[in-house]
Amino acid sequence: MDERDPRFKVRAAELIAAGHFFFERGWVPATAGNFSARLDGHHMAVTVSGRHKGELTEDDLMVVDLDGNVISEGKRPSAEAFLHIVLYRRFPDLGAVLHTHSVNATVLSKLSPGGLVIEDYEVLKAFPGIDTHQTHLNVPVFANDQDIRQLAARVDELMNREPSIPGYLIEGHGLYTWGQDVAAARRHMEAFEFLFECDMQMRRLRS
Amino acid sequence: MDERDPRFKVRAAELIAAGHFFFERGWVPATAGNFSARLDGHHMAVTVSGRHKGELTEDDLMVVDLDGNVISEGKRPSAEAFLHIVLYRRFPDLGAVLHTHSVNATVLSKLSPGGLVIEDYEVLKAFPGIDTHQTHLNVPVFANDQDIRQLAARVDELMNREPSIPGYLIEGHGLYTWGQDVAAARRHMEAFEFLFECDMQMRRLRS
Amino acid sequence: MDERDPRFKVRAAELIAAGHFFFERGWVPATAGNFSARLDGHHMAVTVSGRHKGELTEDDLMVVDLDGNVISEGKRPSAEAFLHIVLYRRFPDLGAVLHTHSVNATVLSKLSPGGLVIEDYEVLKAFPGIDTHQTHLNVPVFANDQDIRQLAARVDELMNREPSIPGYLIEGHGLYTWGQDVAAARRHMEAFEFLFECDMQMRRLRS
Amino acid sequence: MDERDPRFKVRAAELIAAGHFFFERGWVPATAGNFSARLDGHHMAVTVSGRHKGELTEDDLMVVDLDGNVISEGKRPSAEAFLHIVLYRRFPDLGAVLHTHSVNATVLSKLSPGGLVIEDYEVLKAFPGIDTHQTHLNVPVFANDQDIRQLAARVDELMNREPSIPGYLIEGHGLYTWGQDVAAARRHMEAFEFLFECDMQMRRLRS
Repeated sequence: MDERDPRFKVRAAELIAAGHFFFERGWVPATAGNFSARLDGHHMAVTVSGRHKGELTEDDLMVVDLDGNVISEGKRPSAEAFLHIVLYRRFPDLGAVLHTHSVNATVLSKLSPGGLVIEDYEVLKAFPGIDTHQTHLNVPVFANDQDIRQLAARVDELMNREPSIPGYLIEGHGLYTWGQDVAAARRHMEAFEFLFECDMQMRRLRS
Repeated sequence: MDERDPRFKVRAAELIAAGHFFFERGWVPATAGNFSARLDGHHMAVTVSGRHKGELTEDDLMVVDLDGNVISEGKRPSAEAFLHIVLYRRFPDLGAVLHTHSVNATVLSKLSPGGLVIEDYEVLKAFPGIDTHQTHLNVPVFANDQDIRQLAARVDELMNREPSIPGYLIEGHGLYTWGQDVAAARRHMEAFEFLFECDMQMRRLRS
Repeated sequence: MDERDPRFKVRAAELIAAGHFFFERGWVPATAGNFSARLDGHHMAVTVSGRHKGELTEDDLMVVDLDGNVISEGKRPSAEAFLHIVLYRRFPDLGAVLHTHSVNATVLSKLSPGGLVIEDYEVLKAFPGIDTHQTHLNVPVFANDQDIRQLAARVDELMNREPSIPGYLIEGHGLYTWGQDVAAARRHMEAFEFLFECDMQMRRLRS
Repeated sequence: MDERDPRFKVRAAELIAAGHFFFERGWVPATAGNFSARLDGHHMAVTVSGRHKGELTEDDLMVVDLDGNVISEGKRPSAEAFLHIVLYRRFPDLGAVLHTHSVNATVLSKLSPGGLVIEDYEVLKAFPGIDTHQTHLNVPVFANDQDIRQLAARVDELMNREPSIPGYLIEGHGLYTWGQDVAAARRHMEAFEFLFECDMQMRRLRS
């Protein structure tokens, strides 16, 4: 599996389009964020470190295997690639992981470091396994950490207990979400951002 | 009447364009929302269940008759199609029904579950039968319900008493509005969203 | 002077472009707003009543003379055309008048029915005759009125006393601004909207 | 060095693109803002005074040397060109200076005239020399001044003491930021605007 594989090219195009969309919404400022998509049982396409997510080209994506080995010579993946890897290892049918830094995700993670609870919204039905608004979604918030292996271990530990969460926040940093393919992960991103904006507005008007 | 009818193609194009516009404004996150347009006295074009409203193609629309029978084989309409049907049955000259999930519609419906009153705005003149700002508009808010027949019955009961309302909210869910054609329903959507945003800002600054 | 005059076509193109821009910013919801540009000493191009300002074509503009006579047969100008006329009559070098309905203009006009004062912003220099931030701008707010001749008389009376104001608000309705040509009027619109947004944010954070 | 030099054309294209992007985000209303890029050891390309930054063409850029002499005959640079010059003189490897007037930069500069402190955000890593969120960024705020030489002297004096700041605010006026090239300066602009929006939201929700 390398960058010449047609699966790489298709997944890269989907991640490039996701980046354009997220940038227009203001969810990936400067060079923030990183994206990946599964290529096969042991490889992912992932964004190269430090690239602008609103202007990605195929050259800004690369192949990394699920042990963290760089397959695309001469490229360096996002420092947070390991947070993607632990998710692909855990869920064999997981197809994409998207990480953005929106203002709302950042601010809510700082205001609710113990975790967010979102309830009674029709849009909750956008997440897998939810078929009614009469439910609540727990969104964990992890303390930020420049040691990604350590952060990944904390995420992994929580997911052993709560394997069905559709995403999590890192404090002052942003949102991770995922799905069976890039389109599903994008829908989950849109649903989270919508619910975060509703939560922000409710806080302002109820304060 | 089926998908080969030229009326279907024209109405589909109008609903596709409405979806693009609403998505750019952030009013149809994930796969939220559903749209329809009347085709003749007994049929409507309506969005297929679960499609992304910002990326609709003609294949994401289908024909359903006003008894709720699927005419387009192999497709499943939005679960909320019955809310559209009761409106077309009630008003013979109704041409389009649009349902969106904006943040403002969602938040206001939660803050004012007993209904919204909007008054003294020039933009109220965008609604049929209103020719002065010196008036008020009652926007009913219905409790959300996954049983659409039950919700439709509650809407129908209210509309027996107040047939001239131009739209209603479902709590934590979004807005329904309609018009004699897709263009008119879009104008009503724009007017509602404008008035909701004004109302949100007034609440923030007066609180 | 009629719609075949090249000056009409040039001014129409400028007003169409202004409408697209204002619509993208959300300042002309539904069919709100109206625009005009001077054609010669006694005529203006003005938007036809009830057209969507984000989708204007040349056919949505028409010629009206400065006595209020319709020159373009079969078309009806905006009900507010007279508010444009009184400005062209007053200022022989005035080239364009733009009226929009933004959320901020609407909300501020309701919160400050006695008039707005905006001071100490660098962007104030965008208005004619202002060359320092160390100044203040009085923005009059008129009560809304469906009788446009009456509203125009009140505007005219105030402008006899304060001829150098660059714009005014109508309560719950929107902003009028103008300039020596369409480009200048657009710049004044952008400056007003920027200052209104600053004022809204200051009110929220100081309240 | 003049406008026929290929370096001028490349830098102009980059500044034109930056202007389009900033305008779409609403950061350069009316004719606000000014941009420059280094051409060689003693010259810069800079925006001509009074042009709209969202509609720049190559003709709206000009060459000025780092003593402030106009090289492009018949053009007048932004009144604030001297604020750019002092930065190029100070840092030989500086490639671009960007100045915008966003609502958030304007409002925060008025609310915190003594300077802003921004801390504990992952996006702080977008600035040179920062590799952890566990830090704080001091953003100086200078009183506005129509005497640009005087303002430049105050900026210069502060930068003698704090040479590593990535940008500063002018009260009621806007943000200056810079970088080794136009792309880097744009990233810093995006990072500042993101952090300002986070700070605004935190203030609203904590007030």
